Amino acid sequence: MAVRVGANVGAGQITFIKTQVDHAPLARALARQSYAAGARYVDVGYGDEHVRRAMIELGPDSALDFSPKWQNERYAAMAGNAMIATTGDAEPHLLADLDGERVGRARPTESLKVHRRLIAERTMNWTGVGYPNAGWARQVFGEPDVERLWDAVATCTRLDEGDPVEAWRIHMDRLDRRAAALNALELDRLTYAGPGTDLEIGLHTRSRFTSALFRTVDGRQYVANMPTEEVFTTPDARRAEGVVTSTKPLALGGNVVEGLQVTFEDGRIVDVQARQGADIVRGELGTDDNASRLGEVALVDGTSRVGQTGLVYYNTLFDENATCHIAYGAAVAQGHDGAEPDESINVSTAHTDFMIGGPEVDVDGVTRDGRTVPILRDDVWQLPE
Amino acid sequence: MAVRVGANVGAGQITFIKTQVDHAPLARALARQSYAAGARYVDVGYGDEHVRRAMIELGPDSALDFSPKWQNERYAAMAGNAMIATTGDAEPHLLADLDGERVGRARPTESLKVHRRLIAERTMNWTGVGYPNAGWARQVFGEPDVERLWDAVATCTRLDEGDPVEAWRIHMDRLDRRAAALNALELDRLTYAGPGTDLEIGLHTRSRFTSALFRTVDGRQYVANMPTEEVFTTPDARRAEGVVTSTKPLALGGNVVEGLQVTFEDGRIVDVQARQGADIVRGELGTDDNASRLGEVALVDGTSRVGQTGLVYYNTLFDENATCHIAYGAAVAQGHDGAEPDESINVSTAHTDFMIGGPEVDVDGVTRDGRTVPILRDDVWQLPE
Repeated sequence: MAVRVGANVGAGQITFIKTQVDHAPLARALARQSYAAGARYVDVGYGDEHVRRAMIELGPDSALDFSPKWQNERYAAMAGNAMIATTGDAEPHLLADLDGERVGRARPTESLKVHRRLIAERTMNWTGVGYPNAGWARQVFGEPDVERLWDAVATCTRLDEGDPVEAWRIHMDRLDRRAAALNALELDRLTYAGPGTDLEIGLHTRSRFTSALFRTVDGRQYVANMPTEEVFTTPDARRAEGVVTSTKPLALGGNVVEGLQVTFEDGRIVDVQARQGADIVRGELGTDDNASRLGEVALVDGTSRVGQTGLVYYNTLFDENATCHIAYGAAVAQGHDGAEPDESINVSTAHTDFMIGGPEVDVDGVTRDGRTVPILRDDVWQLPE
Repeated sequence: MAVRVGANVGAGQITFIKTQVDHAPLARALARQSYAAGARYVDVGYGDEHVRRAMIELGPDSALDFSPKWQNERYAAMAGNAMIATTGDAEPHLLADLDGERVGRARPTESLKVHRRLIAERTMNWTGVGYPNAGWARQVFGEPDVERLWDAVATCTRLDEGDPVEAWRIHMDRLDRRAAALNALELDRLTYAGPGTDLEIGLHTRSRFTSALFRTVDGRQYVANMPTEEVFTTPDARRAEGVVTSTKPLALGGNVVEGLQVTFEDGRIVDVQARQGADIVRGELGTDDNASRLGEVALVDGTSRVGQTGLVYYNTLFDENATCHIAYGAAVAQGHDGAEPDESINVSTAHTDFMIGGPEVDVDGVTRDGRTVPILRDDVWQLPE
């Protein structure tokens, strides 16, 4: 599913697998399936959180954002090729005792720029998938029940269907119809009202709602996330006002941010509070000028398979698909008209989603001609689909 | 020991760790120790034999010797920096059922050229170390007794000494004295006589015997192999005649070559026989024009700690240090005068050592003025030291 439906690896492409040492069994399976799909080469890049820990704990300051030239080259070579990223922290608390500000700064900025550019230029067909493992299962269930996590992941990704490929086709069609209906409304802004949340996010004429069913500039179709339950768009980076309280924990930088509450003024995050992990968010927001502006706003309702499992995954790929979310940092190219970024389209090396939806949060749209249109009430989608 | 004595990582250097997914615990320790030694960055490159298997089994022909540009860049960036390679196959027979000729051809030729060039130019301080694991232990002992393999490795690498650093100093001094005595003889050739062996290898005025205590062009001292028990030199690539029978199994390309017997004419291997795995050797010899000429000749006696453990390690780093060996393929820069290679100094992307010594093999030197000097009898060193 990841190779054929997700990244949709084409004959003659290189498949880049961006993975972790702890995910080796999945990486190996992805390599085999990629060759079987006709890949001309599979390049598996294994990261290791323990090595990252060593860098953050013992390395010099200059190591934290060092981007090796060969790593930049590797990212650049993904143009025209396929990429599959795997998630699922085997040791979710590994970095918890380190200086949060150093953890937040530990990002290879130049390499990430190259990577974001490729995503923005839509030259790479790619997907992200989860790899259930004992450490991740322990974080979700309090015990290392990998089998139960596999069952949940199978539900989220429709592997429990008789014909998962057909199930994905139907699912993505429905999300695309939602996106079309939202685009037809010609919205000027979205408003969120709920406990600890009173937020307004500006959209503009360049915003386009879409599902995660993407196409490269060469026309190759792919599903960028598995699971995916969202329709999303690129907001106006200059327009966000108010306060928003996260409705789910956010796994970030090897730690968990709990009770995140951020305040926006003139499109920019001006205050970050949290019961735990605020320094990690602040560290990341400090990495570049535009990290504190919004790059994505996504709508998810209660029919989400991820939401229906009733679990907190402590993993953004899953949790963001349980409910509505927004991301500070880079805009996603598919969410706007594709023309050159101006100051309304955010450019940053950061892109961090956090969850702000749920049954207690009402979401409305306000059209350019001033009509208010209910979009979500009690987690139920209010528009025709 | 690997970081401080072996590679001798310097403050401000990058440490490149060339390792395997199965060696993650060692790679992580090497990363920590490197940062503690002042490395400015640690770049861990994890290989995975399962991914290589997928390529050999399912990939196109063009994948076998594909050298990604970013991988070449990474090797090139090792100039001026430190490198630590780890060995110890966790699944020694993983490739055993594959087409041996494809296994032999599966080498990233361009990347290896860059790597060999760096070693030849002596711009990198590096070492190789072993990582005891269950699969390797099972191959050595018939059972996965990792503790016993750690004990053997500790013996081989002098970790059992009260002051291992001092023990290494004394050990390398002794090997350097052997090398000096051999150089003083001004040998024209070496001869080997034993069961299945009647071989003559030409030396020339450019040959220099040395231990594995090397210096970079910048003067940084390092021990390139741990363990190391050899003194070696670069032979005249044009002069080797006769037949030689390997005295130990050779682990190669994920398989084991048993009973290897090769015949030389005019410096070139013209025939390869083996009870098992001859096709892997033949595949490797076919990868370039000079792979079938000699690049190294090394002398090891019965005082070798590796030899004294009485074990076959199915791992060249260890087995080559149990007894005398030769290598077809590239010359090692430290074994000759360092001037530009001419046709007497072999250049190749291959470099494979195999073991030809033991108590039944007599080794003599013949000086330029025609004297025959016994070097090894019954595994005992015959020269003063």
